[in-house]
Amino acid sequence: MSEVLKREARICQPILDLPGSRIRVVTRASADIPDMIKLWFGEGDEPTPEFIREGAKAALDRGETFYAANRGIPPLMKAIHDYMLRAYGAEIGPDRIVTTASGMNAIMITVQCLIEPGDSAVVIGPIWPNGRSAIRAMGGEPRDVFLQPQEDGRWTLDMQQLFDACDDTTRLIMINSPGNPTGWVASAEELKTILDFARERGIWILSDEVYGRIIYGPATHAPSYYTLAQPEDPVVIINSFSKSWSMTGWRLGWIVAPPRLCAAVEKMTEFNISHPTTFVQWGGVTALNDGDAYIEGLVERYERAADLVYQALAPLPRVRLAKPEGAFYAFFSLDGVTDSLQTCIDLARKARVGMAPGIAFGPAGEGRIRLCYAASLPKLSEAMERLIPHLK
Amino acid sequence: MSEVLKREARICQPILDLPGSRIRVVTRASADIPDMIKLWFGEGDEPTPEFIREGAKAALDRGETFYAANRGIPPLMKAIHDYMLRAYGAEIGPDRIVTTASGMNAIMITVQCLIEPGDSAVVIGPIWPNGRSAIRAMGGEPRDVFLQPQEDGRWTLDMQQLFDACDDTTRLIMINSPGNPTGWVASAEELKTILDFARERGIWILSDEVYGRIIYGPATHAPSYYTLAQPEDPVVIINSFSKSWSMTGWRLGWIVAPPRLCAAVEKMTEFNISHPTTFVQWGGVTALNDGDAYIEGLVERYERAADLVYQALAPLPRVRLAKPEGAFYAFFSLDGVTDSLQTCIDLARKARVGMAPGIAFGPAGEGRIRLCYAASLPKLSEAMERLIPHLK
Repeated sequence: MSEVLKREARICQPILDLPGSRIRVVTRASADIPDMIKLWFGEGDEPTPEFIREGAKAALDRGETFYAANRGIPPLMKAIHDYMLRAYGAEIGPDRIVTTASGMNAIMITVQCLIEPGDSAVVIGPIWPNGRSAIRAMGGEPRDVFLQPQEDGRWTLDMQQLFDACDDTTRLIMINSPGNPTGWVASAEELKTILDFARERGIWILSDEVYGRIIYGPATHAPSYYTLAQPEDPVVIINSFSKSWSMTGWRLGWIVAPPRLCAAVEKMTEFNISHPTTFVQWGGVTALNDGDAYIEGLVERYERAADLVYQALAPLPRVRLAKPEGAFYAFFSLDGVTDSLQTCIDLARKARVGMAPGIAFGPAGEGRIRLCYAASLPKLSEAMERLIPHLK
Repeated sequence: MSEVLKREARICQPILDLPGSRIRVVTRASADIPDMIKLWFGEGDEPTPEFIREGAKAALDRGETFYAANRGIPPLMKAIHDYMLRAYGAEIGPDRIVTTASGMNAIMITVQCLIEPGDSAVVIGPIWPNGRSAIRAMGGEPRDVFLQPQEDGRWTLDMQQLFDACDDTTRLIMINSPGNPTGWVASAEELKTILDFARERGIWILSDEVYGRIIYGPATHAPSYYTLAQPEDPVVIINSFSKSWSMTGWRLGWIVAPPRLCAAVEKMTEFNISHPTTFVQWGGVTALNDGDAYIEGLVERYERAADLVYQALAPLPRVRLAKPEGAFYAFFSLDGVTDSLQTCIDLARKARVGMAPGIAFGPAGEGRIRLCYAASLPKLSEAMERLIPHLK
């Protein structure tokens, strides 16, 4: 402390106590390794398609650089409406939509509106950890309910366990399907059962559906609250342009929620970011209006990538891995691993393949490793060649 | 409530209780008026200069569309450092800098780190209301200390009143100089006096310096904590690209704070927005590195605009207005006005000039009107012609 400083000003202890990202621990420990194949973050290895970038550039040329409405520019509101109707068959009006600066921003603002100190939120894990952190940052208590790993590597939800975790302090159930890191896809029946419970108990469902279009097989989207929830139901659906349109760096997403919650989210958007970047929203308009074929091609590519990784890793005796049903992660267990963080650091050094430790996604993730296969097939083949000797 | 919904899920009452923008009340009430001159928002009427837009477009062409570090891309961190050194003579290292998605976002994340329920924050007003709302949203109690209007229209700070408003619950003093809406510019001595108090008491200063370069006369920047604060001092300086580089719609800003607070802000950035849009940050690099001449021209233009408005309004018997020293607002009192919101709605309809009601900036703003003169001189002349008959 400097001489002039008499008394240290306080930073909130719950904020200081929030854990940092364990994935970043691996990336920092591996910063000096040359020629790494980086499969640790949840993003593809190709930039945003050119037609979307051109949409944003044209907006810049037109001078779309002014303040915009909190809810989003009208053409984006319309494009989001049209997209949900076209892709999901869901008719959702503008009083139920707010655009956000990413899925993360959507989660944080929603949690600001719904969680106060003393409240609890039940989180279905293993899950991307940031939602839990948003709950903690607002003074709430996240309660884990873990999916159960089955013999074949798939995950299942014990519904009774979920309901038993909720009590009078519970404001929110957080669900992510298709799931990061598990690839778990909730069935329409499961979503309906949770919705019936939420209606009965007055508990919000925060449904993170950012991987909703990235699903393999004949379906073109995962079961979704877009179609299952009524306008007044206690359901907040999070979406993002990051995954389906390869726009991670753009920070753009949207919320669908009941009108009364959208009014609160709109107000809190003003006090958080005011609105997503104006010309970025125009990129979003282009993505939604002209991007259907791009998504189709992307999902085909990811399905081939999933096959390649599954064929390479599943036969290894130490590995347990189910064929992914959605999202773009292989979340495999590795016999004998009790410290996935150290294992990932070791594998990065020895195999020069960067992956995310299972512990980053909660205690139920320990013993596992997450590999993001949203990469080109040659790169993935090379990664498999490097990895396999070290997984035997 | 729909038939299936048994119990309404709760939205946090403090969030529901937050007031919406009174400026938006005027804009909504005036939506049907044709040919309005809109001087109600705090932004210029010209788009971002082309060279900055080209910087972002080039980044889009290079495929700068991926996730980035929470603190900001290294070239932007360096450009911010270089700018503060060049413009303020302040040597501030990267451990004291975090980029944010606007000044508003910077304030919200700072408040998340510093304010818990039961804490108070002293706010020097009249002031842009969103900082108060961020404090309330985090469960804190904003306490107003109002600048005193002098006979000549200028504002002064009663230092004892400020100190008396602080007690053991006080975590934060919020100050905005040059001030929106007042145009008040704190002297270096005043800033130092507040700093000494903050050091003694362990209270943070949140110094919103987004208008720091928009100051009239020989100085090229307002007195600033960039030069007055030591690295470990309890000072958070908010800056933004919105005002000095005409980048309101871009949502880009930065924080300067002690390293220990920057570490917390960096972590909370992950849980709020992850990082500002990647190619937007490249636009920021261009703005900072190549924008010095632009700022110089902008301030000259705003000074001429300030003169024009001052010459037109100050002589009117009902008006009291000091010549603005900084920022880009005329915040004039109008004899006989007790309801500035209704007055602004009336003036919008009768004079077709859109302005912001003083009450939007706190009770001490009642009886006043804020006119943003960041507009072209012909437009301002026309606005004066329309307004003057109604202010007599």
